[in-house]
Amino acid sequence: MEISARNSLKTTVKKVVTGSVNTEVTLELAPGIELVSIITKSSAEKLGLVEGKQAYAVIKSSDVIVAVD
Amino acid sequence: MEISARNSLKTTVKKVVTGSVNTEVTLELAPGIELVSIITKSSAEKLGLVEGKQAYAVIKSSDVIVAVD
Amino acid sequence: MEISARNSLKTTVKKVVTGSVNTEVTLELAPGIELVSIITKSSAEKLGLVEGKQAYAVIKSSDVIVAVD
Amino acid sequence: MEISARNSLKTTVKKVVTGSVNTEVTLELAPGIELVSIITKSSAEKLGLVEGKQAYAVIKSSDVIVAVD
Amino acid sequence: MEISARNSLKTTVKKVVTGSVNTEVTLELAPGIELVSIITKSSAEKLGLVEGKQAYAVIKSSDVIVAVD
Amino acid sequence: MEISARNSLKTTVKKVVTGSVNTEVTLELAPGIELVSIITKSSAEKLGLVEGKQAYAVIKSSDVIVAVD
Repeated sequence: MEISARNSLKTTVKKVVTGSVNTEVTLELAPGIELVSIITKSSAEKLGLVEGKQAYAVIKSSDVIVAVD
Repeated sequence: MEISARNSLKTTVKKVVTGSVNTEVTLELAPGIELVSIITKSSAEKLGLVEGKQAYAVIKSSDVIVAVD
Repeated sequence: MEISARNSLKTTVKKVVTGSVNTEVTLELAPGIELVSIITKSSAEKLGLVEGKQAYAVIKSSDVIVAVD
Repeated sequence: MEISARNSLKTTVKKVVTGSVNTEVTLELAPGIELVSIITKSSAEKLGLVEGKQAYAVIKSSDVIVAVD
Repeated sequence: MEISARNSLKTTVKKVVTGSVNTEVTLELAPGIELVSIITKSSAEKLGLVEGKQAYAVIKSSDVIVAVD
Repeated sequence: MEISARNSLKTTVKKVVTGSVNTEVTLELAPGIELVSIITKSSAEKLGLVEGKQAYAVIKSSDVIVAVD
């Protein structure tokens, strides 16, 4: 499946914290570079997300805010 | 300024393409790992975004979709 | 590719209007039920979106606002 | 009230699952075509969402991601 | 129409700048307190947005990021 | 830190309701004008949000929906 979102980055699942409704997934893009994602618990289970699994972080370009010091 | 968005990644501006209303900014997280952001032209000018400048990619955790093959 | 977004609806592309930066895509879910999507022009081209093509409308559950009369 | 979001689809509430903070609402667009929405529990109560009620699914066009096989 | 989005603030349209695809609308919440909204040109026309008109700024609570100095 | 989001409004924290995962923050823009934000509990703690604290409500212009009666 190809998707219209501009950003689709290869990552490795580093941590999965399961809540009552949502699951927090920490994705490692490169050593020391991580992204936190919050998805529903049912999605996390459907995708079989466990530590070490390869996954993509999909982000729309309009959802990337830019900041400078 | 500290911000509630969970993800605030250090990047280097790699490319800035200015449109009539929006500007597309390519941010390099690490060699070969890039994020594309679309912000308004006026924001890009206010922030002084030019190639080589240090910038942060700020992304809410609920805006990170996870996909697997 | 499987994705964490809860909604992934089968549609047929009904109309594609190409702008300078963005493309407006009208997706038909069922006769008379349509969704409008705005994506970047480059994404629309990469996906090869043309009238009649099968496509999925992917929508995060937190992006669906509910209203009542 | 008229709204700037491009998509406002007529639906019937099919299922309401109430959590501690959020409520998951399943909306039927047509037989077999459903959308899941997650809203706050207080919003769901304010709107009086119950099975069988008519409701609108309001979605911004920029929140509709397009994917192809 | 009642809506699940938590924030629905009364405003007065202060400025409307029409682009080729999008329209930038400045909404005044109170003297000196303004919000900028970008909507599609067709939505702005459908709503009849002109300077001085009463309008609501509708914002999902999950779209309000909090920052501190 | 300067940010690409168009709206950055000065507010005072009026109420903080802490859930198991998320925190609901009520921000006062002016007397009688309030915005509700939902952020993660860990973000609320990191920012030290308590009643009476000065804070900014940061909102992307594309997240401001406009409605009229």
